[in-house]
Amino acid sequence: MNSMAAAIRPQLRIRPVNLDTGRENVVVISRRSQALRAEVFRGFSRVELRCNSKILLATLILTDDGLVGIDELGLAEPAFRRFGEPAGSLVTVTPAASPESLDAVRAKIHGAVLSDADIGAIIGDIANYRYSDMEIAAFLIGSASFMSSDELLALSQAMAQAGTRLNWTRPIVVDKHCIGGIPGNRTSMVVVPIVAAHGLTIPKTSSRAITSPAGTADTMEVLARVDLGADEMKQVVSACDGCLIWGGHVNLSPADDILISVERALSLDTREQMVASIMSKKIAAGSTHLLIDLPVGPAAKLTTGVAAMRLRKLFEFVGDRFGIAVEVIMTDGRQPIGHGIGPVLEAQDVMAVLANDPAAPADLREKSLRLAAHLLEYDPKLRGGSGYARARDLLESGAALKRMQMIIDAQGPSSSRTDLGKLTADIKAQRTGVVVSIDCLRLNRLARSAGAPIDKGAGIRVFKKIGERVEQGEPLYRIHACDTPEFDLAIAAANASTGYVVGHGAREAGA
Amino acid sequence: MNSMAAAIRPQLRIRPVNLDTGRENVVVISRRSQALRAEVFRGFSRVELRCNSKILLATLILTDDGLVGIDELGLAEPAFRRFGEPAGSLVTVTPAASPESLDAVRAKIHGAVLSDADIGAIIGDIANYRYSDMEIAAFLIGSASFMSSDELLALSQAMAQAGTRLNWTRPIVVDKHCIGGIPGNRTSMVVVPIVAAHGLTIPKTSSRAITSPAGTADTMEVLARVDLGADEMKQVVSACDGCLIWGGHVNLSPADDILISVERALSLDTREQMVASIMSKKIAAGSTHLLIDLPVGPAAKLTTGVAAMRLRKLFEFVGDRFGIAVEVIMTDGRQPIGHGIGPVLEAQDVMAVLANDPAAPADLREKSLRLAAHLLEYDPKLRGGSGYARARDLLESGAALKRMQMIIDAQGPSSSRTDLGKLTADIKAQRTGVVVSIDCLRLNRLARSAGAPIDKGAGIRVFKKIGERVEQGEPLYRIHACDTPEFDLAIAAANASTGYVVGHGAREAGA
Repeated sequence: MNSMAAAIRPQLRIRPVNLDTGRENVVVISRRSQALRAEVFRGFSRVELRCNSKILLATLILTDDGLVGIDELGLAEPAFRRFGEPAGSLVTVTPAASPESLDAVRAKIHGAVLSDADIGAIIGDIANYRYSDMEIAAFLIGSASFMSSDELLALSQAMAQAGTRLNWTRPIVVDKHCIGGIPGNRTSMVVVPIVAAHGLTIPKTSSRAITSPAGTADTMEVLARVDLGADEMKQVVSACDGCLIWGGHVNLSPADDILISVERALSLDTREQMVASIMSKKIAAGSTHLLIDLPVGPAAKLTTGVAAMRLRKLFEFVGDRFGIAVEVIMTDGRQPIGHGIGPVLEAQDVMAVLANDPAAPADLREKSLRLAAHLLEYDPKLRGGSGYARARDLLESGAALKRMQMIIDAQGPSSSRTDLGKLTADIKAQRTGVVVSIDCLRLNRLARSAGAPIDKGAGIRVFKKIGERVEQGEPLYRIHACDTPEFDLAIAAANASTGYVVGHGAREAGA
Repeated sequence: MNSMAAAIRPQLRIRPVNLDTGRENVVVISRRSQALRAEVFRGFSRVELRCNSKILLATLILTDDGLVGIDELGLAEPAFRRFGEPAGSLVTVTPAASPESLDAVRAKIHGAVLSDADIGAIIGDIANYRYSDMEIAAFLIGSASFMSSDELLALSQAMAQAGTRLNWTRPIVVDKHCIGGIPGNRTSMVVVPIVAAHGLTIPKTSSRAITSPAGTADTMEVLARVDLGADEMKQVVSACDGCLIWGGHVNLSPADDILISVERALSLDTREQMVASIMSKKIAAGSTHLLIDLPVGPAAKLTTGVAAMRLRKLFEFVGDRFGIAVEVIMTDGRQPIGHGIGPVLEAQDVMAVLANDPAAPADLREKSLRLAAHLLEYDPKLRGGSGYARARDLLESGAALKRMQMIIDAQGPSSSRTDLGKLTADIKAQRTGVVVSIDCLRLNRLARSAGAPIDKGAGIRVFKKIGERVEQGEPLYRIHACDTPEFDLAIAAANASTGYVVGHGAREAGA
């Protein structure tokens, strides 16, 4: 019936309107438009646009304003870009029927197990922006309580198929992934140059910070451009055997980016979604060998070894089915890695490790060598435990630093500011004793309050780690900020709660 | 930290903007505004506005356009109305933290049973527009798979408390409710005048059509004004013992209206939500005795007696706990009731029954008498089966018609058009035989295609019911429409599928 309705309804001319509506497609129509009847088309209802054979689903806003004429249809960003028709093109607009795949979502909500075809249709519709945020939430929540093994495989597969697939002509393509949550944990930026210097292919894509003060992409951006597309990425990897870029422009698993944005808005966190999210990107990226880092600690994403073990099984299960050799290791997630938290501070740590600076953070160096050792042993010539020695050689010889500089040159110069925040304040221990614990979540929040990752030079320099002795009045860490409001906020928040516990003999108390 | 951020951030001046965003709060800010940093405030993210002690959560749209100045904050309808601060007032805007009650929603998604306090907080936040549609969907879906008896009671209670509560000084306040889905089923408009003529109090509020071609409120609006507020409603009931108004302006259980709009957008349909929805409104309306009509049929909301029985138990359970005497009856939901489908056609049926017109539809008359009989027997003087005779007396004596005219006069004249659609086409039987079934959903869709309920005079007049004999070429029903596009659409759709099955001896086939 939609096609008949389209034939009868008056058409409207497309006009781009300067409204940024994030990820959501939004269309603006005059309340006096001939093409709609206000009782049927209500504000924030879903409508379907048709132009030639193109169809776009969008959320409707009505206006009496001059924003659009009565014969016009305003397309906000990103709907105008996605629809891809020039201004002035004639479109019809009808109330949108829900995507058919929503029937499967409703079945899932009521306890059904979905087929591969069902899940493929859902993910295809999501990747093509046919679901509203509410409908995406319905899928995620319906899946949150129960997902079968077959559903998990189908979800990983469908998400991998929905975007760019990278093909490499090399037999071994290695990758590493950390599930995140630990401040300063920038091992990829040490591991990639070591592994690439050895000659293994490691085309690393990373995310920007979402809720943390820095993602690997934010930190790498202090040193080089990171917003490369798939073709540019291939050139860098062809020349350097590795890269360190932001995944956003490569378009691996675009459905995953959409699902994650809704998960974040709802603070939903389920194991199956996490595994499908990560594995879909690795399948699409053409990885053959994958090392996964699961930090475990009281303020990490995983708080117990049992939880980490369950997650490990899921990663291995999906890896097996897709022919990816997956290795999962649990690491110490009790405290920050390195000295710096925030892009510039973390980049300084990374370069100090690569330069074999005696003042470089030993924990970042050791963890990176350990991860690199695992990856290097995917090289048949290095099996049997010689990976660590090889990694250390590549680091100590300067080969890794040289390779990092090659990668930086190949990716090109960054346009972002890279100076350290000049406003500084030391947060001091209130008592003498030994550091018993450090709350990673708290330090992440403080670094964000100080302005990271937007201000690349903002963040925290950590002076004391767990087990170290501190004197009363001695600095625990230093806050760096670029602007006064953020600086004041971060200091006030740190003084309210430092995130450190300093113990005194058998007793423990706040620092 | 929000209050500190508020103290530091620049303030913006409120400006109402002419954008209709349905139920959703939307705010428009210039991308060049001092009050935001684009990386933190993304399009369609949630923001929190503060002005004096008022707080409003809203969805953000960014613009470079002249819609708002750089020191302004545009509030779309309905956000401007809900915030209730005049244009020019200074507000601060910060990224919104999720409502705290969302923690309980997340717990529910992961299988928890919620406390009364949890559910009260969730419903309070929803009624105060603090949840986004996505967050409302999360609550509904999290509750869809499992809801305990205590949760159902808490939900009904919380929803009833969130809006207007009506108090009546009379000991018996009766009400009836049908769960809907049957075309032409306008029994309330016959039952209310009969029961009110007897002297029992029956303050009936009804809904407008959402997915059907007419709600009772749409049909009553053909005869009288229906958009009365609570005070006006009380005056009508005081004068007439009954009323027939739209519930929208009385504000009973406003959280329910919000939940229903999200359920509808997702086509979610769960028993517990339906029971909480209906019972919360009856609790808030001060009903003491409630009759619930559950039509059962192949294209009705309930397809089996077992499903109806389960629903009945839930209604009785909630009624018991809130001291409402609930009686649930199952009725024939196999086919339309009366001749007309659509507001004007249905109003004609109702008035014909009340006027004892020999051509009035016998099924509407009989069903209405039966329902009225149940209600009349709530009067202690009529117990023991004399309700039916009393109802018939009130109808046949003209007392019910007279009472209907009192109610119409008290509610006042309607401003809507009330003439029948002049464009007509008869849909004819393709073969001779007996009507075996009528698809209620199909007839509802056809009547909506013809223009109902927006065009009050559009709809369908049914000539043949189940069990009746038809000759090939004899009309099954007549389509009425007011405008040509709708008329053409409805005819094409009816010819594609009439909704009737005409059987021939033992065999059955499409009409």
